[in-house]
Amino acid sequence: MDAEEFRKAGKEMVDYVADYLENIRDRRVLSEVEPGYLHKLIPTEAPQEPEKWEDVMSDIERVIMPGVTHWHHPQFHAYFPTANSYPSLVADILSGAIGCIGFSWIASPACTELEVVMMDWLAQMLNLPQGFMSGGKGGGVIQGTASEATLVALLAARSRMVAKLKKTHPEMEEGEILSKLVCYTSDQAHSSVERSALLGAVKCHKVVSNDREEMKGDALKAAIEEDIQKGLLPFFVVATLGTTPSCAFDKTLEIGPVCIEADLWMHVDSAYAGSAFICPEFRPLLDGIEHADSFNFNPHKWLLVNFDCSAMWFKDTTYVVDAFNVDPLYLQHDHQGKVPDYRHWQIPLGRRFRSLKLWFVMRMFGVKGIQEHIRKHITLAHQFEDLIKADSRFKVTHEVTMGLVCFRLKDHPNDVNEALLRRLNDDGRIHLVPSSSKGIYFLRLAVCASRTEPKDMVFAYETISELADEVIAKQANTKFENFH
Amino acid sequence: MDAEEFRKAGKEMVDYVADYLENIRDRRVLSEVEPGYLHKLIPTEAPQEPEKWEDVMSDIERVIMPGVTHWHHPQFHAYFPTANSYPSLVADILSGAIGCIGFSWIASPACTELEVVMMDWLAQMLNLPQGFMSGGKGGGVIQGTASEATLVALLAARSRMVAKLKKTHPEMEEGEILSKLVCYTSDQAHSSVERSALLGAVKCHKVVSNDREEMKGDALKAAIEEDIQKGLLPFFVVATLGTTPSCAFDKTLEIGPVCIEADLWMHVDSAYAGSAFICPEFRPLLDGIEHADSFNFNPHKWLLVNFDCSAMWFKDTTYVVDAFNVDPLYLQHDHQGKVPDYRHWQIPLGRRFRSLKLWFVMRMFGVKGIQEHIRKHITLAHQFEDLIKADSRFKVTHEVTMGLVCFRLKDHPNDVNEALLRRLNDDGRIHLVPSSSKGIYFLRLAVCASRTEPKDMVFAYETISELADEVIAKQANTKFENFH
Repeated sequence: MDAEEFRKAGKEMVDYVADYLENIRDRRVLSEVEPGYLHKLIPTEAPQEPEKWEDVMSDIERVIMPGVTHWHHPQFHAYFPTANSYPSLVADILSGAIGCIGFSWIASPACTELEVVMMDWLAQMLNLPQGFMSGGKGGGVIQGTASEATLVALLAARSRMVAKLKKTHPEMEEGEILSKLVCYTSDQAHSSVERSALLGAVKCHKVVSNDREEMKGDALKAAIEEDIQKGLLPFFVVATLGTTPSCAFDKTLEIGPVCIEADLWMHVDSAYAGSAFICPEFRPLLDGIEHADSFNFNPHKWLLVNFDCSAMWFKDTTYVVDAFNVDPLYLQHDHQGKVPDYRHWQIPLGRRFRSLKLWFVMRMFGVKGIQEHIRKHITLAHQFEDLIKADSRFKVTHEVTMGLVCFRLKDHPNDVNEALLRRLNDDGRIHLVPSSSKGIYFLRLAVCASRTEPKDMVFAYETISELADEVIAKQANTKFENFH
Repeated sequence: MDAEEFRKAGKEMVDYVADYLENIRDRRVLSEVEPGYLHKLIPTEAPQEPEKWEDVMSDIERVIMPGVTHWHHPQFHAYFPTANSYPSLVADILSGAIGCIGFSWIASPACTELEVVMMDWLAQMLNLPQGFMSGGKGGGVIQGTASEATLVALLAARSRMVAKLKKTHPEMEEGEILSKLVCYTSDQAHSSVERSALLGAVKCHKVVSNDREEMKGDALKAAIEEDIQKGLLPFFVVATLGTTPSCAFDKTLEIGPVCIEADLWMHVDSAYAGSAFICPEFRPLLDGIEHADSFNFNPHKWLLVNFDCSAMWFKDTTYVVDAFNVDPLYLQHDHQGKVPDYRHWQIPLGRRFRSLKLWFVMRMFGVKGIQEHIRKHITLAHQFEDLIKADSRFKVTHEVTMGLVCFRLKDHPNDVNEALLRRLNDDGRIHLVPSSSKGIYFLRLAVCASRTEPKDMVFAYETISELADEVIAKQANTKFENFH
């Protein structure tokens, strides 16, 4: 493919993408293929000779699309949203073409410097404390995912703790220290927190959340004291603002002082809900952030920036650089120390030019346009909440604060609710995933696509209502049959 | 930006990208900006109102390009190559638009299944042992970077070792085990290996390489025995095929049997050179791979697939899944176990649809086209090698096998060679980075861009020759002045 062919193919793809996204309603949101469908459709070996572009292009509909679950379909309500916007797609074309690997400043100064400024723009939009911004000890960086951000925070905190103990307890060996380190998070936290502890070879104590699914300061304090009694070494706390199961908010205003008193690193994970804090009316939910050592949210979830773009800030970047720095000659350069070398702030060495997406999106939407997007999703969630509340068969199980509504059939046990979820996904008009907490199974409807409209909330409700009738009737029949 | 504006802006960007890449020779390869240049060119805050597309587009040349080090410039010879090709760029437009998060099969079956088949295609092209392919216990996965692949392999190996010791030595506590684990790699290995050990909280023993910079089986064996004597627990070896400093090849045919005898996990990292093994004449360099537990190379370096796409295979995927699996309800689905859920094979949870790039590139170039690309780079490297060898001031310091030539001024000490490197990068006509080994500093010229031609090798040699004259003359003057 030479430049002229690329101009043709690239533009054809731009049109295909616009057509795909504008007409996405015509597709089935959830793929119907069976496992192993794809290998039957394509050869078992790569071709020896080049193929024609037309053949590759036409295989998108034949091979790929049947197996796509359409995350940007207005009736996709599973997990949490992943962002997709036109300015972001255009920025990524440029990012790919520049194709620089921004592991150090010199490897492409624009890649590092635009990221520094974009992270400051974002910090201002969130009204983060000044200490997280560039210019002092703090700073922001784009990670790939919230899982990586949590792991990076844990490793930095581990490094800080080991260094501290080596000073205060020079008799302790590193292996002994490691075997006693314990981190804390809510029993509602994302599985990636427990996984970070597993990978970082430290213990993870899940603090029992209250009946609103929140981690409270006193519960954390009790957990820490219990572990200190056992001879363990508490070092790290992950508080979640907007949990994955039900979008609950840990009490960071209580947790912060507990962490400061016990000298623990507090990381605040607000992967999904964080985007909403750019709206002044939701910013109070971030209060307590002044106590945090690190903070993370995903513009790639709800801020119109395509995956991957997970924004992370540190109050003091010394610790992460200490944890990650191994510096051979071929990566050194004359300007070291004046600007961040982001390779010391992350797990991978290489990195793409991801700040371009942030820049294009913030400029093409403006802060007001992005706020509008957030507010629209939250309004849609409340619309769906009202529809569910008005139906006496259902109950909304958790307070609706953001774009997530958790609900269940209130007079039926878990298995009937499970049957309803399965029936909905088999039906395929809308796509949801379930969750459960404290023994109660519930359905989660997340407002995901930027194209979701009020009519889609009505459609979702009506589909759920129709299939609930069916599942309840079947259930009654089964009972009746069992009775006879 | 609505769909019509996207069609216009997207096509404009496609043209910009084609123009940028076709005319990249007209730019200076190495950016000349000073640290902090960018924040002076753009506002300190995000705009409240949307801006015009034309303003964003015109800022690319004003703000971004002055700070770009052009990795695809024919005279970029630093680090190792990063790939860039038109089919890959087109595939990424599609990947962005589909915008699915492929953490499980159901989240987008095509995303998982195309990856399985593409990794099999690649495995066949490399003539990897059947055990690494899908269908049995083995399988391939796309990681982001080789650093992540190494860390994932180390964590899987650590998990296997801990499980084994808990059976054979039930009296040992996990903390004690961890504090005694030790991994091995050559003193020539990439810094990411040492970093993986640091993050994984295990010791790293750097085995001294021989005078050809290779890790030998007997040296590894001696290191293992020394550590066992000290009461340590060897568990993991990283062998490198094509080291970063000088493109040396560890002796995997010797190392493999040592690992098997001592029951250590052998990971083979061939991030750069791995692509060349698709050419039958270079495949013997991969011999010994049959002893490996995991293998990794980066199509995003030398196989025309844009960053990030790091191909990794396991002989038995059980261990990595065991190391990473923490499985909450909202991520479970009905088809679990039948197809890989790639979230258990990697550090992040989310993942992009990266196999599309592999598919487009393999089809649009064909295996023969990709082989041609590899052979062209290696031929260019030998051309440059011959130019350097014909100049009595220089010596080629390491055998040239792939697209990297290491050389130095032979009758001058390190500081003069350092001065030459600095002078070259200040001059900016070509861009190189240095390395050193066993006290000897040398310059590395890597053939990187797909647009590099024989004339660029002549240009690189002539530039180096000219500036060497200058540096040597200056050196002589300094000596003369010091003498008087």
